[in-house]
Formats: sequence, structure tokens, C-alpha cells
Amino acid sequence: MRDDILPVILCGGTGTRLWPVSREGMAKQLLPIVGDRTLLQMTLARVAGKGFAEPMVIGSHPVRFTIRDQVEAVAPKARVVIEPERRDTLAAVLLAAAIAAAEDPNRVLAVMPSDHLIRDEARFRDAVARAADAVREAGIAVIGVTPDAPSTAYGYIKPGAESGPGVRMVTRFVEKPDEERAHRLIFDGCLWNAGIFCFRAGWVLEAARLHEPASVAAVERAVAAMVPDLGMLKPGADFARARAISFDHGFMEKTDAALVVPADFHWSDVGDWDAVWAASDKDGAGNAIRGDGIVRGGADNLVHSEGRLVCALGVEGLAIIETPDAVLVAPRGRAQEVKALVGALKADSRPEASEHIRCHRPWGWYQTTDLGDRFRVKRIVVKPGAKLSLQRHHHRAEHWVVVRGTAEVTVDDKVSTLHENESVYISIGSVHRLANPGKIPVEIIEVQTGTYLEEDDIERIEDEFNRL
Amino acid sequence: MRDDILPVILCGGTGTRLWPVSREGMAKQLLPIVGDRTLLQMTLARVAGKGFAEPMVIGSHPVRFTIRDQVEAVAPKARVVIEPERRDTLAAVLLAAAIAAAEDPNRVLAVMPSDHLIRDEARFRDAVARAADAVREAGIAVIGVTPDAPSTAYGYIKPGAESGPGVRMVTRFVEKPDEERAHRLIFDGCLWNAGIFCFRAGWVLEAARLHEPASVAAVERAVAAMVPDLGMLKPGADFARARAISFDHGFMEKTDAALVVPADFHWSDVGDWDAVWAASDKDGAGNAIRGDGIVRGGADNLVHSEGRLVCALGVEGLAIIETPDAVLVAPRGRAQEVKALVGALKADSRPEASEHIRCHRPWGWYQTTDLGDRFRVKRIVVKPGAKLSLQRHHHRAEHWVVVRGTAEVTVDDKVSTLHENESVYISIGSVHRLANPGKIPVEIIEVQTGTYLEEDDIERIEDEFNRL
Repeated sequence: MRDDILPVILCGGTGTRLWPVSREGMAKQLLPIVGDRTLLQMTLARVAGKGFAEPMVIGSHPVRFTIRDQVEAVAPKARVVIEPERRDTLAAVLLAAAIAAAEDPNRVLAVMPSDHLIRDEARFRDAVARAADAVREAGIAVIGVTPDAPSTAYGYIKPGAESGPGVRMVTRFVEKPDEERAHRLIFDGCLWNAGIFCFRAGWVLEAARLHEPASVAAVERAVAAMVPDLGMLKPGADFARARAISFDHGFMEKTDAALVVPADFHWSDVGDWDAVWAASDKDGAGNAIRGDGIVRGGADNLVHSEGRLVCALGVEGLAIIETPDAVLVAPRGRAQEVKALVGALKADSRPEASEHIRCHRPWGWYQTTDLGDRFRVKRIVVKPGAKLSLQRHHHRAEHWVVVRGTAEVTVDDKVSTLHENESVYISIGSVHRLANPGKIPVEIIEVQTGTYLEEDDIERIEDEFNRL
Repeated sequence: MRDDILPVILCGGTGTRLWPVSREGMAKQLLPIVGDRTLLQMTLARVAGKGFAEPMVIGSHPVRFTIRDQVEAVAPKARVVIEPERRDTLAAVLLAAAIAAAEDPNRVLAVMPSDHLIRDEARFRDAVARAADAVREAGIAVIGVTPDAPSTAYGYIKPGAESGPGVRMVTRFVEKPDEERAHRLIFDGCLWNAGIFCFRAGWVLEAARLHEPASVAAVERAVAAMVPDLGMLKPGADFARARAISFDHGFMEKTDAALVVPADFHWSDVGDWDAVWAASDKDGAGNAIRGDGIVRGGADNLVHSEGRLVCALGVEGLAIIETPDAVLVAPRGRAQEVKALVGALKADSRPEASEHIRCHRPWGWYQTTDLGDRFRVKRIVVKPGAKLSLQRHHHRAEHWVVVRGTAEVTVDDKVSTLHENESVYISIGSVHRLANPGKIPVEIIEVQTGTYLEEDDIERIEDEFNRL
């Protein structure tokens, strides 16, 4: 039996309350919301080193390549497991447990979200170690953070009798309260539920089997059929038969073996723009400014600019969020309503609701930079060693100009090498491919012309990322 | 002696209080701030038809082609006179008077700003007719608008004894007051100074000669040397010797021949975002939305979007102004402070302070749409029949892809015709020229590569707009 803890990082959330920065197509854990690294990368850093084994990241299919690349950059030995379908957190936790149990049923896991912020890492590690110790035999321990404000955005835990050093029984879980109730809960000694759980792999599977036998069986079949896939692990399709329910509702509220480990560290779920403001560095007037922002005669604002100059004049307590295709202005205190706004945009079929204009692909990314009646201009960046699919378009011609690096370009039967400042023309219907044989990224400017210029005009003939 | 009035439209303002939409490089009178036409074009429409002669527009040199094009589109017979240098309004008025007086010293002029908004055009015309009648012999009459609020943004006029039907003597002019004083001025029957003046051309020159003899002489010499230039009129360089002072300070405050014509029409100088909000159509909650804006749970906001989706959530009384390179958020009531903000940006050498990213040229316009370390992408639009200068760059190569229309391209000794979806390469140092021989605009995507990609890397060899 290994003593070190296996960190399991759940990376499947959609984070729409941080719109327009976080969107379904690239959610907040994959973005540098506070600081230079993404929340996922900050979470990986938090569980690196002594006491922890190489982590396991559970991610979702549409963003698998982004997750893989971000994990690789900071924790190259971590395992990335991609859910074939989004199934909420119960299935994700069972998936991690089943993978670990197949190796060692006594392995202790520490499951945690990928999109939270924790300032005092030593206290975090200490709390996780206590939680792990408490469940070496059996049971499940959740970290309970000492509240520093009557938050209505978090769930609470009422601790009961002590069951060991620094560990108490859970009396009950309390859903997000209103403000009055939050005051009473804090007065009663309740703790915030930080969503960090420790348990033995084999124990949680057996305990879950009592209430959710079909889900456990489905996940175990999926793990038996799991295969490596492009640097990730791909469980079998049976995973989709697991019930879509949260781990809180599907497990924690049903078990009578829940323990809580009280901890006192600075923790935030970075759940809305108000929380981002609270977690950010501020100037003397309480303004948190990220990117090219200027505040004159205003206080307590969050200004987030991804490119353009944003000037705030004489305003207070606002979140002003600028992205390449959408701007949000809202009082920080009403930031919880952003989710409803995104819902309305989605109902209105606005692409800004869910997708970013920079589209990440396994080989790199592209972004539309200009769009006219019968043309579209893109910037395309290809990673060293990567290649796009061999493809053909039925409605558009393309002009490529290499502006950085060296590209290998296939057009019909001809393969040529294009250097910076060289160009090539791809007529409608030509079979073509772009690859980067070099050591630095290739950047090209693509000018498309034609009457139909959408992404679905693509016929893939060969693809090393299995996207045919 | 002709009976119709010669409208003179002053088009030299810089309008920085409507930043980031209005900037020195393209000020508010040249932009569609309210409605579909520009303020200049709305002003031209107001003085078209019975009672008015073909107008004269006095504009400034950097934006002369834009003024010419906007005037041509709605008043093709109007004269456009371009000041060789900005000299404030006294010189501009004297310039118009000297040009008119050379033809007929008895001609009655109605001088007005190009950037105001007037709703009741019939009452405006009636007031101008009364003012013109009052000065057929001598004197100068200014339109005084009945205030509908104690504005601190306008100058006031105290009317005195009646001097004719609907015309009164001016007791005094009052500069922009504070709010308390504004209340008293209205109680005293004062009127807003709308900046609209009528006088005889010969009279105003003789009257100005008493106080500003050198300025009048300089302007008269400039008119004697005036020549036609690319569809405009270009006075001689002596114009720069006229004193730079406003017509209010340089003339009106000194004359004892000032009359005021009280008028009751809806008038606004559209001087700040609050005034734009007041002049705009609004939804039931008082939100004025221009472009792609959404307001949820907010009231009395002005949302102006030039491209991106702008969402305002739960905010009140804000001006939210989105442009391709800058965003402003300010309470409408503090909109007067925008000018100081622009001053600070200018002191900080921010290009957003003065220049738009779409650059207008006599032949059309261009705009940078993507910019990297060693490349720049532009969209270039060339008007039918227009051509760029014959030019050469020392530090960059260019790739042109035609995405609309038919271009005539000269590269060194070779002239070729490029159709939609065709491209050409211009190597560093090649002499080249882009022209549009067709009947519809030509649009090209230009990809520049090189280590220095600024506008000043241009050597003009031939130019039909005299910009060598």
C-alpha cells in the first residue's frame, strides 16, 4: 500500500458565470483568470511534490487537447482521462476511483475541483493530509473552510463530534443559503464546503454501489475498456450509462460515513466576477485592473481587458470585462446574474454565448481577424511538429501567407516548403494540408474567398487526431 | 443683390468630449452620432432648398477629403473651402465673409456649426429668415434658443429692448454658468447662444477691421490667392497670419451691433455623451442603444457599440461606448470629464487619444485588422476610379489578395489586372501602385511582412492628391 495521496482534479466545468471570458468552449479552469497561469495549472502546482503522487486529471472531450497541453506544460507525468461524455461529478469521481482501484484498492484519493483558488498552500496540504489519514480505513472526509464572510454563493457543512485529531463527524450539509441564514450558519460554527474529498478508492466504489449500482458497473466496464489515445486515456463508451448527478447529491448526502476536516486557509471558488475582484491585486482605490485598463475617479472596480484600451471614469463597484467579441458591464454585486444573461444569449443563438473567437485545435489555434461579404481572414498558428488534416473545401479558395516559421504545404500531389514571406494558393476542391516540420510555431495568414465560408465546409481525408 | 441666404457651415471642431467615437483625426461632425447621416450632412440638409443658396463649408486640412466626400454625397453644388491651418472660428468666419464679399458685399450669410442637432427645422428656418431680415442694412443677429433646462454646458444671451418684429437688442453674453447661476439666468429670460449668426458679408469685414485689421487683411490676401484644388477651394498661405481666436471673443463681445432672434426649437450641441443620450431614441426603461447592445435590468443608459456585443447588466445612467480599439464606461452625468481623460491619454502618447484605427484617405480607407511581431494585416478599400500613390517601401514586402472588385496593379514595369480571388506579391523596394479602374469599390487584404511596419516607411514617387 502506497502512502502518498493520489490527487484527482476534476476539470469538466463550464463556468458561465465568468462570461464573456469563460465560455462552454473554453471554461474558466483553462484560463488565466487571476495571475499568469490557468486555474487548472495552479491546482496542479498545489498538489505537486512530497506527499502527493502524480495527479490524475478528469476532463471533457471537446477541450481534451487544451487540457492535455496545459497539463503537459506543468505536470508532464500526470494522467489525463477524458470522459467520452459529460456526466456530472459523481461519474467523474467514480471513474477516478475505478482507475485507481484497479491498481490498488487501498489507494487514498484527494478529489478536488480544477477551478478554485487557494492562497495558503501549506495549510491546504496539512488539511488534505489530515483528511487522508482519517479515511485510511474507511469513510470519506471533506475539507471545511472557516468562513470569512456570510457568503450566499457557497454550500455549508455543520460539523458534529470530534472523531479524531482535527477531524469531526458531519452533522449535515446545507445548500447555498440566503444572507440571513448564512449569518446564522456561521454563528453555529458551520464551515464552507470546499468540494475537496478524500477516500480510499475501493471503499468509495463499494459505498457507491449501495445507492448507484448501475453507475458503478458502467464506470467499471468503461475502465476495463480504457485505451491510450493521443497522450490521454480514453475510457469505453459504457461511461455514458452512468447517471448524470453531482457527487454531492448522488453520494455525500446519502452516506453516513462523512467526516469534515476544518481548515483555515484563504479559499475562493472564483465563481463570479465579484470573487475574481476579491482575489485580485488592487490599487489604492480598490480597483483591480488586468490588461490595458485605466480608472479615473472611480473605486472598487474590476477592469479586465483582453486587448483594447478600457477607460472607466467616475464609476464604482463595477465589473467591466472586455473580450475580442463581447463586453460586459455590471455591478460586481450583481455578478451572479451573468449566468442568466448567458442563458438568454444562448436562447437567442448568439455565438458569443458559448464559443470564443480563438478556436483551439490539437495542432494549434486559429482566429478570424476580418470578415466581409465574400471573404474571411484568419490567423492560424501551428505547433512545432503538428499537422492539420488532409482536407478539401467545396465552396472556398484559400490564400496562405507564411508570416512566421517554416511550413510544409501539400496541394494535390505537390509538397512544398514555404518560408516566412512566401505564399501559396489553394483553389476550390484542391486536396491540401498544412504542417509544421520545424522547431518554432508556424503562423500563417489565410484569406478565404467564396460565397460560403463556414467551418463545416471541410472534407477530411486523413487526420492524425482521429477527427474524420 | 440676391435675397437668398448663404449658409456657411463651420466644420473645424475636434469634439474630444465624444471620445472614443469622436477623435481629432475624425471629429464628431463627420460621424453618424445620432441617426444614419453625419452631423455635417444633417446640417447641410437643414439649409437645403427655398430661401438658401448653395452652402459653403469651411473645413480643416487633415480631414479635407472626408469633408469633400460627405458634402458631395448630399450637396454636390456646395463649395468646400479648406483652411490651410486651424485658426479658430474668427478666421473661419472672416474667410467665408471675404469669399462672399468678393462676389457681392451685400450678400447675407448665416454662419452655423456643423455639429449641432436641431429637431424643428421649420422654426429654425423661420428664425434664420428673421435674423437675415434684421441685418439687411447692418449689424449681426444671433439665434437665441429658449432654454428647456438650466444647462451648465451652454453660453447664455441676455436680450434687451425689441428692435424689430421678433428681434431684440443683446444686453450681454454670459459664459457657461454654474447650475445656480443657470437657474437665475433662465428666470431672467436669458436664451442659449446656439452659435448661429447672420450678417452682411461686407458689413462684418468692415466691423472686424476696427478690432482685428491684420486678421482681416490676412484673410483677404488668402482669398485673393485662393485656387481650386481636387474639388475644393484652397486659400493662400496668408490665412495662417490671422489671429487664432473664437468669433465669440474676437468679435461678438466687442461689437455694439449685436441683435438676438429668440427662437423656440429643440436644439442640442451634442457636446457630450449625456447630450447624445438626450437626443437619442430610448426604450421603455430609458436606455438608448446604438449597435449591438443589450441592457438587462438597467435604466437610462447609453450603449453605443461599433461592432462587438455589449451587455449591460443592472446598471443605471451609464454611457458605455465601444469602438474597435477603445471602450469608455462613465456615468452620463460625468461625461464632461471625458475631455480631461483624452488629455491624459494624449500626454501618455496613446494613439487611441487622437486617431481612429480606420484611416481615411482621398482614395478610400484602410484599417489594420491583425498585427504580429513581424507582420501586419490590413483591409484596404479603394473607391471606383481612384488610385493610390506610386510608391516604394524600404522595410517591408506586401502580399495583396483581391477580395472584391477588379484592381489594376502596377509592380515595377508591369501593369496587370487582378480580379476577385487573385493575388500579387510586392517585394521590398519594388515600385508599385494600386488603382481601381472599375465601377464598384475594390477591397484587398494586404499582408505586410518585415521588421519595420509603420506608415512612415513610404516613398511616394507620384501622387494625384499632391501628397509627395
